[in-house]
Amino acid sequence: MKKVLLFVTDGFADWEASYVTAELNKSWTDYQVQTVAIDKDPKVSMGGLTVLPDYSMDDVPQGFSMLILPGGTTWREEKNQQVKKLVEDCFRKNIPVAAICDATTFLGIHGFLDHHKHTGNSLPYLKEGAPHYRGEDHYIDEQSVRDNGLITANGTAALEFTRNVLRELQVYDEKELQEWYALFKKGSVHS
Amino acid sequence: MKKVLLFVTDGFADWEASYVTAELNKSWTDYQVQTVAIDKDPKVSMGGLTVLPDYSMDDVPQGFSMLILPGGTTWREEKNQQVKKLVEDCFRKNIPVAAICDATTFLGIHGFLDHHKHTGNSLPYLKEGAPHYRGEDHYIDEQSVRDNGLITANGTAALEFTRNVLRELQVYDEKELQEWYALFKKGSVHS
Repeated sequence: MKKVLLFVTDGFADWEASYVTAELNKSWTDYQVQTVAIDKDPKVSMGGLTVLPDYSMDDVPQGFSMLILPGGTTWREEKNQQVKKLVEDCFRKNIPVAAICDATTFLGIHGFLDHHKHTGNSLPYLKEGAPHYRGEDHYIDEQSVRDNGLITANGTAALEFTRNVLRELQVYDEKELQEWYALFKKGSVHS
Repeated sequence: MKKVLLFVTDGFADWEASYVTAELNKSWTDYQVQTVAIDKDPKVSMGGLTVLPDYSMDDVPQGFSMLILPGGTTWREEKNQQVKKLVEDCFRKNIPVAAICDATTFLGIHGFLDHHKHTGNSLPYLKEGAPHYRGEDHYIDEQSVRDNGLITANGTAALEFTRNVLRELQVYDEKELQEWYALFKKGSVHS
């Protein structure tokens, strides 16, 4: 099985990566989702779930297939900046990175968006809060953007984010993807 | 703080209660979400998150405000039928119950839907698999139904499920609810 790592923090947004992890982890895919965090201490989600991380920064497994960064309430805390090195490793090794909501802002602050098309509704914050941010010209007003191994999305775009991740990892063909998306976007009854 | 309990099982569907737990747990509500399970062993979600339950069937806190039952892959396993007693307690004490996807089927199998309007896309299974199921006349072809302290939903209706729970617990007024729903249904950019 190919591993996909989900980075969990205290206050991570439950819904943002919820569709994509469940879909990737289904028995017919080549992927297995596991969690990684700054350390092995339990992390409590925004919705109150206490999650035990599978890995910490000290024992990240080799050869994983994607790093997923959900948003949340603690992306601006000092300790969570430690994930920067893991993200750098991914970019260097051409491992895809998928970030949603505040995790996209995190990428912008650290310069990871400077050379990639991206979205994320934090552009004003980035322009004011990150003096070195040079990704403005690459900003695209879409719910989710996929560009050269980088996927970004707004916090209200969990489904569009998932569709781009499934596309990147070639889990479904385009027709299956559209059916999957329509089912969850419009509902099974009135689609 | 008033407690809302989320029942977690192995294979629980990450997305189905993800919006509602995060919204209920926000600092400005009167509610706190905690997890309950058959026992205190960690439960692994469909998407691969290892969750440590706050409570087991042996130490369910008194006086909680709602029981939320997300769907998942193990609702038909024998051990998970143990939650039936907790559900009975809720119905007897008029504590609202909110069930989505396979958890709705669970309620039907055990007769909890017989006297409530409900939805859930498992009607064929219920008719075949549950000889005592008498809720057919109450079935409504909607993404989510709220009726007299019981909320049900299809697995593709996490947002509609959330809206009904927030309505039941009077977290937002109707105008705020519609804004919340539009934001997440249509997205922040193109709404």
